[in-house]
Amino acid sequence: MQVIKSSGALEKFDHKKIYNTIRAAGGSKKLAGSATKEIKKKFKKNVSTEEILKFLLKYLNSEPGVSQRYNLKRAIMALGPSGFPFEKFFARVLEYYGYKTSVGNKLKGKRIIHEVDVVAEKDKKWMIECKYHNEHGTITKLHPALYTYARFLDLESYHFNSPWLVTNTRCSGDAINYAKGVGLRVTSWSFPNKESLQDLIHKKSVFPITILTSVKNEEVNKFYEANLIVAKDLLNISSRELSRRAKIDEKRIIKIIEEVREVCGK
Amino acid sequence: MQVIKSSGALEKFDHKKIYNTIRAAGGSKKLAGSATKEIKKKFKKNVSTEEILKFLLKYLNSEPGVSQRYNLKRAIMALGPSGFPFEKFFARVLEYYGYKTSVGNKLKGKRIIHEVDVVAEKDKKWMIECKYHNEHGTITKLHPALYTYARFLDLESYHFNSPWLVTNTRCSGDAINYAKGVGLRVTSWSFPNKESLQDLIHKKSVFPITILTSVKNEEVNKFYEANLIVAKDLLNISSRELSRRAKIDEKRIIKIIEEVREVCGK
Repeated sequence: MQVIKSSGALEKFDHKKIYNTIRAAGGSKKLAGSATKEIKKKFKKNVSTEEILKFLLKYLNSEPGVSQRYNLKRAIMALGPSGFPFEKFFARVLEYYGYKTSVGNKLKGKRIIHEVDVVAEKDKKWMIECKYHNEHGTITKLHPALYTYARFLDLESYHFNSPWLVTNTRCSGDAINYAKGVGLRVTSWSFPNKESLQDLIHKKSVFPITILTSVKNEEVNKFYEANLIVAKDLLNISSRELSRRAKIDEKRIIKIIEEVREVCGK
Repeated sequence: MQVIKSSGALEKFDHKKIYNTIRAAGGSKKLAGSATKEIKKKFKKNVSTEEILKFLLKYLNSEPGVSQRYNLKRAIMALGPSGFPFEKFFARVLEYYGYKTSVGNKLKGKRIIHEVDVVAEKDKKWMIECKYHNEHGTITKLHPALYTYARFLDLESYHFNSPWLVTNTRCSGDAINYAKGVGLRVTSWSFPNKESLQDLIHKKSVFPITILTSVKNEEVNKFYEANLIVAKDLLNISSRELSRRAKIDEKRIIKIIEEVREVCGK
């Protein structure tokens, strides 16, 4: 059996990958095992990742929050389309790891002013370029790695310790090899092992609010306007205050908070 | 009167610019003067660059070759869509200026292999990145300047004297300022003064074959396949040999050569 990826490419069906992703999304071994078995039984011929996902999102519902967390990649794709929220989102993720961050900086290079997506400090000072794609099947290739490094060089006077390229998609092998050579840190959807974007998000349950299936687009926008982008952050604010800030009815807010608890396992 | 550019932006009608472009295309002072007067008379309200062009291409026909040469920008946009012919075309332009060139090079950087569009040598050794756009109204912004420079640094072992960014569109001010700061040579559609892409082409009449109005797309492709991309090059080959190489009937070739002479003023 082969899987048709969103890029159109065919790939051998890898039940281990699905098993691991369900486990990463907090599903029990039992659930992960039965889900992969079901897929093998249900789909005999080639099948699109889209169809597998549709099946899984229903199937995983039997354990609270697993389905949503399994859908993390799409939740992040839903942050766009401008890309600005991804920078804000990633900065917030870093804050959960003890970094001090600032977003949307304009810094003077030797000749021109550069827009630096995120400046982050923790022991070291990082110049972060966020490369956001909201189309499935896109890859971050060599160019962003090259221009991130050139920008870092041009901002010498700010004494950044290192540049850092963050992306919500896969990074090409060329980009990663180049980055290693020049000391550019790379965080992509699944690289590096144990510290990839998905790892960073899962480890501290720093999910974007777009992961909440009951929340509609217009509500997402209201949360953005109230500067709320991480689902977990809603748990630190009273429902009354949240209702006031996001301009959403308090009863509805209470419902939303329930889903947040389910997803974050609290 | 304002002009609606292909980007959608409005710009004050500048009769001097049109006058100068006609002169650069080899039109007489008389023709340039009467054409601009006619435009002012004919168009009273806002008008698109498209409409002005349509009018001019007919009007300029009264002097042989002027109309085609005036249309140079579009002829280059017609080189695409892959962009590869633009690299080949620019390399051929450089050869008319005494450069030795090679196209589509794969060079080993510190960690990865880079594709370098053109390597050119004349006194100095240049690493050339061609940034080709085939949509009107596009600008080459900062990123290509940044990544061209980073690539140059990574290819240190080849001892290039300088990187060089060539584009068939306008270059943003940021890109040009950055380039100045790091010693990156830039050639864009109209920069630098007297050595812009259009200047380089006009000075030696190194027009692409897409400038010939009588030549159809399928014939253009046949010339490409015969590795012919500069109209003037057709003049150095006998019509029989050309017919054989490009697989186009000799009578037709003779007609085409007539138009080449008209455009190149020979």
